[in-house]
Amino acid sequence: MLSRLFAPKVKVSAHCDLPCGVYDPAQARIEAESVKAIQEKMAANDDLHFQIRATVIKEQRAELAKHHLDVLWSDYFKPPHFESYPELHTLVNEAVKALSAAKASTDPATGQKALDYIAQIDKIFWETKKA
Amino acid sequence: MLSRLFAPKVKVSAHCDLPCGVYDPAQARIEAESVKAIQEKMAANDDLHFQIRATVIKEQRAELAKHHLDVLWSDYFKPPHFESYPELHTLVNEAVKALSAAKASTDPATGQKALDYIAQIDKIFWETKKA
Amino acid sequence: MLSRLFAPKVKVSAHCDLPCGVYDPAQARIEAESVKAIQEKMAANDDLHFQIRATVIKEQRAELAKHHLDVLWSDYFKPPHFESYPELHTLVNEAVKALSAAKASTDPATGQKALDYIAQIDKIFWETKKA
Amino acid sequence: MLSRLFAPKVKVSAHCDLPCGVYDPAQARIEAESVKAIQEKMAANDDLHFQIRATVIKEQRAELAKHHLDVLWSDYFKPPHFESYPELHTLVNEAVKALSAAKASTDPATGQKALDYIAQIDKIFWETKKA
Amino acid sequence: MLSRLFAPKVKVSAHCDLPCGVYDPAQARIEAESVKAIQEKMAANDDLHFQIRATVIKEQRAELAKHHLDVLWSDYFKPPHFESYPELHTLVNEAVKALSAAKASTDPATGQKALDYIAQIDKIFWETKKA
Amino acid sequence: MLSRLFAPKVKVSAHCDLPCGVYDPAQARIEAESVKAIQEKMAANDDLHFQIRATVIKEQRAELAKHHLDVLWSDYFKPPHFESYPELHTLVNEAVKALSAAKASTDPATGQKALDYIAQIDKIFWETKKA
Repeated sequence: MLSRLFAPKVKVSAHCDLPCGVYDPAQARIEAESVKAIQEKMAANDDLHFQIRATVIKEQRAELAKHHLDVLWSDYFKPPHFESYPELHTLVNEAVKALSAAKASTDPATGQKALDYIAQIDKIFWETKKA
Repeated sequence: MLSRLFAPKVKVSAHCDLPCGVYDPAQARIEAESVKAIQEKMAANDDLHFQIRATVIKEQRAELAKHHLDVLWSDYFKPPHFESYPELHTLVNEAVKALSAAKASTDPATGQKALDYIAQIDKIFWETKKA
Repeated sequence: MLSRLFAPKVKVSAHCDLPCGVYDPAQARIEAESVKAIQEKMAANDDLHFQIRATVIKEQRAELAKHHLDVLWSDYFKPPHFESYPELHTLVNEAVKALSAAKASTDPATGQKALDYIAQIDKIFWETKKA
Repeated sequence: MLSRLFAPKVKVSAHCDLPCGVYDPAQARIEAESVKAIQEKMAANDDLHFQIRATVIKEQRAELAKHHLDVLWSDYFKPPHFESYPELHTLVNEAVKALSAAKASTDPATGQKALDYIAQIDKIFWETKKA
Repeated sequence: MLSRLFAPKVKVSAHCDLPCGVYDPAQARIEAESVKAIQEKMAANDDLHFQIRATVIKEQRAELAKHHLDVLWSDYFKPPHFESYPELHTLVNEAVKALSAAKASTDPATGQKALDYIAQIDKIFWETKKA
Repeated sequence: MLSRLFAPKVKVSAHCDLPCGVYDPAQARIEAESVKAIQEKMAANDDLHFQIRATVIKEQRAELAKHHLDVLWSDYFKPPHFESYPELHTLVNEAVKALSAAKASTDPATGQKALDYIAQIDKIFWETKKA
């Protein structure tokens, strides 16, 4: 853990690949919250057309959350971050896989699992911003 | 101002039109921050290809910020909100027009102007969430 | 009503935010016509996969119609228009909300309601073009 | 020409592939008008950032016009139409190639050439609708 | 058939309309394979949410395959190709119509029919590349 | 290296997250080839509008290549693959970063560097498919 306190300064690039320097895991969190909220509403309304709409929109929101995490992994986090946080590759990979699982499920627990992974990534993100 | 404290409870719908109930003006703010950051970087780097890339990406980020504001205006805010905040239509309209202006400018002041409008919308948003 | 005849000349900007000067509410109308036509076909064919496809495509067409109306509201209509037509903000807001309602319904009456709003916007649009 | 008057009735499908039955070449025309209008504005404003923005937006509008023509060619026009109008394949192919040429040019004549092709397609379209 | 051996050299343009010169029917094939694979999985799993997700994703993959074929037809193939291969217009048109049919069906035979058309286009494509 | 020969059988999921089981690194390769081809053409044509168009299109193709690699990383490769190929996380991360670098450069060497990474991923991919 100590190594993270002395993590080398890292030139940050941005979510738009210019880079503009603006990143925020909140983008992934907001979309994943929408996935879980949709799963909760699906449990309370079994009308066919509502279930179809909810599934369509859950696919879109989960895909957006995956995209925001992909951008953090490919554009924000740099080799020094991966050295300071050896678990980071696997953590982000499990987070995007949890979102795929939430696409395929109506169980809000799957949405929550994705949110839990995103919270861990968020914690590392802000540690690296302060480093 | 008093009327806002007694604004009628409003059934909230979500940024995904299901509705899932999840809204957050942070989505517009993050993209508008990217617009302003790009404008600042354009002032510091006059390489042609950097200027082209920056202009392309600034168009995308500003368009995303406009979309997030459109969603708040069409899906989150309801008639009771517009009654409690008579300035709300004009405020959101000026905010999306400020983002159009920021698309057409390299001056970070235009990016900041859009952020200022978004901050006002954000304030109203959270007041209505607590109402 | 008289004020509209003497509405000040307004510099028009375009649906592409350059601006190129080309706007046409027909874009919103064509997509909303598709929404209503899909609702009518859904009443005549209860095959599950047809209902799923119809719901998916209705979401897309209604979202496109909302986008075209958002562009008119944010890019074409200017402050002088909103002064000449004080009902314009609310009219466009009700139109995009009617399209959200048509997303959530298989009843062609909801599609027609959105088309009726678009027709009112279309009338104002061409009045301002002639002003 | 006579054969077209007695063209067999053709089951029409729609621009959304459901099919919903709603097609209109106006969608391609509006976007191609925007391409030509942008080319005209590019001749009147040689500011670098305006030229970059105009080129970016012209690419988008021309691509949308190509898409609308592709949809008419693949989803609306049927074999009986191609028999009644043997020139139709080549006409649509030349129209989309004219839009590619307009992407690569700032000369409004290229935009007009695409509009001329679209007008020919529009004429055939409405003839088949009346057939 | 002989005429194809002496087909005139054709200036090739690219799938990105610059043109960059890079085309490959494999892009259409991979997406059409996905359509057929989804149809096969739909036959083996009648869970409602799986059927909804499968239908949603099949629409997307089939639409991408149609797009890749449209690009070959509008950007890669040139008038000399259409002269050397008089059946080419109709072949590509039937291929995109077969993909529309596969959108509307859960029968893998419809996915295979689209793949068969794409294989014929692929054969002509590589012949023209060697010409 | 021996461990890869005895890599455990892995349930493969697809590029469309259903999963449909269809993956192919060729999708990333074709787009990265387009990036390099555009860089080569940019060296041969210094017309401003060509340079703008080329930069715009290079951004799109590179972003598509990044997306295809993200999908392989998040949806195709599973934990057992990452155990058999400990370098895989870093390899894919370097590949998407190489594509970001190619976005920001007109030097075809940067396009080639991305293609070299994709070739390594392609090799591992087909090994896992045979495992």
